[in-house]
Amino acid sequence: MKGGHHVKGIEAPTVIEIENGSIVTPRGFQATGLHSGVKRKRLDLGAIYCEVPASVAAVYTCNRIQAAPLKVTKESIEKEGKIQALVVNSGNANACTGKRGIEDAYEMRKQSANHFALPEHYVAITSTGVIGEYMNMEKIVTGIKQLKPQSSLESAEAFNQAILTTDTINKKICYETFVDGKKVYIGGVAKGSGMINPNMATMLSFVTTDANVDSNVLQQALSDITNQTFNRITVDGDTSTNDMVVVMASGLADNESLTPAHPDWDGFYLALKETCESLAKQIARDGEGATKLIEVQVNGALNDEEAGKIAKKIVGSDLVKSAVFGTDANWGRIICAIGYSGCEINPDTIDIAIGPVQTLIQSQPTTFSEEEAKSYMENNDTVVIEVDLHLANGSGKAWGCDLSYDYVRINAGYRT
Amino acid sequence: MKGGHHVKGIEAPTVIEIENGSIVTPRGFQATGLHSGVKRKRLDLGAIYCEVPASVAAVYTCNRIQAAPLKVTKESIEKEGKIQALVVNSGNANACTGKRGIEDAYEMRKQSANHFALPEHYVAITSTGVIGEYMNMEKIVTGIKQLKPQSSLESAEAFNQAILTTDTINKKICYETFVDGKKVYIGGVAKGSGMINPNMATMLSFVTTDANVDSNVLQQALSDITNQTFNRITVDGDTSTNDMVVVMASGLADNESLTPAHPDWDGFYLALKETCESLAKQIARDGEGATKLIEVQVNGALNDEEAGKIAKKIVGSDLVKSAVFGTDANWGRIICAIGYSGCEINPDTIDIAIGPVQTLIQSQPTTFSEEEAKSYMENNDTVVIEVDLHLANGSGKAWGCDLSYDYVRINAGYRT
Repeated sequence: MKGGHHVKGIEAPTVIEIENGSIVTPRGFQATGLHSGVKRKRLDLGAIYCEVPASVAAVYTCNRIQAAPLKVTKESIEKEGKIQALVVNSGNANACTGKRGIEDAYEMRKQSANHFALPEHYVAITSTGVIGEYMNMEKIVTGIKQLKPQSSLESAEAFNQAILTTDTINKKICYETFVDGKKVYIGGVAKGSGMINPNMATMLSFVTTDANVDSNVLQQALSDITNQTFNRITVDGDTSTNDMVVVMASGLADNESLTPAHPDWDGFYLALKETCESLAKQIARDGEGATKLIEVQVNGALNDEEAGKIAKKIVGSDLVKSAVFGTDANWGRIICAIGYSGCEINPDTIDIAIGPVQTLIQSQPTTFSEEEAKSYMENNDTVVIEVDLHLANGSGKAWGCDLSYDYVRINAGYRT
Repeated sequence: MKGGHHVKGIEAPTVIEIENGSIVTPRGFQATGLHSGVKRKRLDLGAIYCEVPASVAAVYTCNRIQAAPLKVTKESIEKEGKIQALVVNSGNANACTGKRGIEDAYEMRKQSANHFALPEHYVAITSTGVIGEYMNMEKIVTGIKQLKPQSSLESAEAFNQAILTTDTINKKICYETFVDGKKVYIGGVAKGSGMINPNMATMLSFVTTDANVDSNVLQQALSDITNQTFNRITVDGDTSTNDMVVVMASGLADNESLTPAHPDWDGFYLALKETCESLAKQIARDGEGATKLIEVQVNGALNDEEAGKIAKKIVGSDLVKSAVFGTDANWGRIICAIGYSGCEINPDTIDIAIGPVQTLIQSQPTTFSEEEAKSYMENNDTVVIEVDLHLANGSGKAWGCDLSYDYVRINAGYRT
C-alpha cells in the first residue's frame, strides 16, 4: 500500500492505492487476453467477465464519425444498464467500414454472448487499431471461442497487453476505500498514446469495482469525473473514432446501494476520480514519443471550466510541448496560449511558474535563473506549469506530454 | 508576366502577376532594410515609406495578449485612416513587456516620425521575434535614424529580409490589374513560419497599392479577404501576440475612387485577394520544418464557413501532417479530423481523394493503389486533399504544411 488521498470534509474519506491490484481485484471479476492473429505477434483480443450482471456506465468519443462497435455497445448498455462481459480487440478499429463493419460488430457481440452463455445485451464490445479495414472475422471468432477469463493477476496483465496499440507501457491502477465499513475495490486499465484529446476521445479505459451502485448513479459520477480527468488530457489534439470508458460495478462488496446521499459517497467518488485521473495521467505520460508528463495548473480564472480550458490550451500547444522537450523555460509560448484560449483574462495580471521557478509576475518577466529552470525540466519526469490569472477563483488542471522527434517518427509511418 | 486569373462575370477582370514586382512597384512607395544590432548578423529593421499619405487598412491578431506595437499602430491608423511610414523590427517582439514596452513602442513611433518628418499618427510600427524581453532602444533608435527608403528592387528585398525570423525564404508577390483603363499595381510581402494559425495570427504581411481607394472600403475588403486567405492557414495551431496585415494605398494610379459600385471593383478585389492568398500559401509552405504545402479543398458542406472550418481542422491535424511527411495515404486520419471538426456532416456520405487517388467513397474505403498515392505525395511539392461531404453546397479551402523532425528541432531550441 502507498499513497493516501483525502478530500475536504468533517471526516476525510480514505482512498488507498493497492500495489498489486488490478481489474480483477474487485470481487466477481475475471479477465483474459490472447493472440487471435489480427496483429502479427502481440496479444490482440481480451475480455473482462463478471460473475454477475454488473451495473454499467460508459462515455464515448465525441467524434461524429463513430466506429461500429460503439453503436453496438451503446445498444447493449442502454437496454438494461447492466453487462456481464466486455470483449476488446486491438489491431483493427472497425471504423469507417460501413454496413459490413456494423454487421461484423454485431457478429462479434453474438459470438461473445454464445461463448459466455449470456444474452447479447449483456455483452459490450470494442475495437482499437487501424481505421478503414474490414475485420478478419475468422480470426476474431476463433479467438473469442478461446477466451477463458480468470481472476489471477496474470490474466489481468494479459488483458492489459491485449488492448495496447502504440502504447509503450501498461496503464493500470487499483484503489480501495470503505463503504458501510466494508472494503470496496476499484481497479482500472487504459490504453492510448496518440490521438489523445479531450472530450472523451482517443483512448480505451475499463474500470471495475465491487461497489453496489446503480447504473444511473454510476453514469452521473463517471460523466462528472471524465470532464475533470480523461477530458483534460491531450497528446496531439486529435479525437479518435473509437474510444470509450466503461465502468462495471459487480455489487459484490455488498454495501448499501451508493447514491450521493450515502455517508460514504465522497470516498467512493474520490476513489473513482483518483482511478480515472491516474489512468489519464498515465496515458498522457505515454503519449507517442513523449519523454515527459506536463501538468498545467491554472488558478484565478473566471470559473473552473475556463481554468480547465486554458490549462488544456497550454498543454496542447505544439510550441509549449516542443519547448518542454528542449527543456527551454519559454514562458512566452505559455502566455501566448493563454491569450488565444478564447477565455476571459486580464492581460496585465498573469503569473507563470515552471516548477519552482517564477518566470512571469503580473505579466512582466522576472529575472529568473534560466539554468535553474532548465535543470528543473531536465531532472523531473513531470514538468509542472502553474498559472495564476488573478481574475477570479476558477481553477483546473490538464495533462499532456512533450513533442519529440519520436512523435513524428511514429506518426509518419504508423500504417505502413 | 505569367499566370492570369479570372472571376465569374460578364467581363472577367484581368489580374496579371508581375515577375520582378515588389512592394515598391506601386507608384509612390519606397522601402529599405538594415542591420541595427537587435539580431546578431542579419537585417533586422525595415521601413516602407509612401510619398503621400496612404489610405490604410489593417487586421490584427485575435490573441488577447497583444504586443505593445499593435496598440500604438492601432492608435495611428484609427486617427485618420492614413499613414505614410511603417517601421518594422525583427529579433524582439516587444510583447509581454508591460508599461516599459508600451513606452518603447511610443518612442519607436516618435523617433520614426521625427526621422521622416511626419506627424506621429502617420507612422505605424510593428515588431516580431522573442517575447518577454525589453527592446534595446539604443540600437533601434540609432537604426531608425539610418533608414533611407528607396524605390529600387534591392531596397524592397532589404525590407523583405529585415522582417524575417525563422523563415527560410522570402515571401512576396506583385500583381497588376486595370481600373478606369489605368494600370493599378498591388505588391505584397510577408513573414511567418511558426505560430501560424487562423484568425489573423502569427505573421506579418504588408501590402502596397497605388489604387485610389478610401480606407473604409479598403478595410472592408481586407477583412473579407483575410477570412478566406490568412485565416485559412495553419502551421502549428498557435496564434501569436504580434501579428498583423497592413495594406497601404497611395492613390497615385489616379483612378476614380474604388468602391464595390465601381465597374472595375471586381478586378481590384481579385488582385488583392490573389495577393493575400499567394502570401498565405507561401507562409504555409515555409512552415517551420515543412517539406510540403498541403492544400485541403472541402466541398458539399453545410455552408462555406463550415467548409473552411473543416478544411482547417484537417490541415491542422498533427496526425494528418505527420502522414503527409511520411507520404502515407492515411485517409483514416482525415475522416477522423472531419468527425471532430464540430461541423455538420453525414457520417455515411464522405468522399476523400489524395491528389488523383480516390481513397474513400460514401465513407467506405476503395481499393486504391497505395503505391500511386505514395508516388503522388513523394513527387509533388503541394499535396492536395479533396473532401466532398455530399451534404449541401458549402465549399472552402485551407493550407498548411507537413510535420517533420525539423519542426521539433527548430522549436525545441528557438530561444537558446
